[in-house]
Amino acid sequence: MAKEQPATDTRFAVTRRNRVMRRPTRGVYDKKAVYDILDSAIVCHIAYVIDGQPYCTPTSFWREGDHVYWHGSSASRMIKSQAESIPVCLTVTHLDALDLARCGFNHAVDYRCAMVFGQARKIESEAKLGLMDRFIDRFYPGRSRILRPPTASEIKSVTILGMPIDQASAKIRAVGFGDNEEDYAVPAWTAVIPIKTVMGEIVECPRQMPGVERPKGMRAYRAGRKLDEILAETYRETFEG
Amino acid sequence: MAKEQPATDTRFAVTRRNRVMRRPTRGVYDKKAVYDILDSAIVCHIAYVIDGQPYCTPTSFWREGDHVYWHGSSASRMIKSQAESIPVCLTVTHLDALDLARCGFNHAVDYRCAMVFGQARKIESEAKLGLMDRFIDRFYPGRSRILRPPTASEIKSVTILGMPIDQASAKIRAVGFGDNEEDYAVPAWTAVIPIKTVMGEIVECPRQMPGVERPKGMRAYRAGRKLDEILAETYRETFEG
Repeated sequence: MAKEQPATDTRFAVTRRNRVMRRPTRGVYDKKAVYDILDSAIVCHIAYVIDGQPYCTPTSFWREGDHVYWHGSSASRMIKSQAESIPVCLTVTHLDALDLARCGFNHAVDYRCAMVFGQARKIESEAKLGLMDRFIDRFYPGRSRILRPPTASEIKSVTILGMPIDQASAKIRAVGFGDNEEDYAVPAWTAVIPIKTVMGEIVECPRQMPGVERPKGMRAYRAGRKLDEILAETYRETFEG
Repeated sequence: MAKEQPATDTRFAVTRRNRVMRRPTRGVYDKKAVYDILDSAIVCHIAYVIDGQPYCTPTSFWREGDHVYWHGSSASRMIKSQAESIPVCLTVTHLDALDLARCGFNHAVDYRCAMVFGQARKIESEAKLGLMDRFIDRFYPGRSRILRPPTASEIKSVTILGMPIDQASAKIRAVGFGDNEEDYAVPAWTAVIPIKTVMGEIVECPRQMPGVERPKGMRAYRAGRKLDEILAETYRETFEG
């Protein structure tokens, strides 16, 4: 089992909270590995507690540096509660394969999962507009510049939450076949079934303005491509391009 | 906003806990709608609390009647905590599309989400073996019969948790284009980007026993098919076939 370890520039601290305890060899505390999983997703699930009841809510999010951001209606109970700096756990999971085996015990799925721990706070007005733009641009590079700007009431009705990543870890299973040696004699048809989340054919708005062309910032979006690859590419274009 | 309502045979009760408060018209309390979302997934995310810290953990699961089931190592801190009948929230989300718009505010994703609330308990030995088999058969109809049966130590090392669905709700967004009428004059290229999770080409085990053929229970698994459709079909085959 991984021992507790202090943080370094490139690794998250390992503590009782984020330590991967089952199959500790699958635990990854390297910041780049955690960020790669986060930055190739649009939807995360967030665990939080209101009045002693845990909730698990999906929402779109993005990362900038050592923060994650998400948003919601300013009237949302989830958002209002999370803005009170309650502890949350934000999780991203990519499902990569279903792994069959010759006994039930060795059936599994291959996946990449990142868990991020911290306490969110409401982003106040000075920083809010820039973050609202980057929420769009992170997925659709450069798009905020061509949109109708937000109105005062739209800005007011949205709350952006930001959370410094206090601790984090990743867990990756990429094993595929995993039978016990003695089980290969069992005559059960066995396979790995790859799973991928992909983009379908774009449906252009039927009311597209004449002469409006697909922007360069959308070049990563091509039918059949894996969504995680598209999102990793758009992320790089916005934050590293 | 939906009022609180008692449960009926076909609908979950609507209470403060499960009521969909934002965009209440998207809230669905019909049991079939909730079950359809659950039964077309293999991975859920579960929110639970240990020592005041919420965790959000992905795991594979399945539903039978008004219960959901999942499993883990008997030594797992998550499983041991959840077996103590702590409150949990189990959530399944299917991402269906990214919806662009002509202002940031109207960008969205289309999705189907089900949230299930309750308290889990450990399944004791009489029922456990049958559930372990159905965990396999739910995804791969009939497969448990062709596998090497579990050993005593495998059975002991796995804990199955079962949770009566105390309350549940679904939230579905299938809007696609959602611009304000006055925004259609904004010359921003706009589209809906369908997203689907699909099966890739099967990788057969290189050590397949000679003469072993792909079982009929795997007929739903065909490359290019949507995983949610495959899982809905295998579910029906096992529980309604």
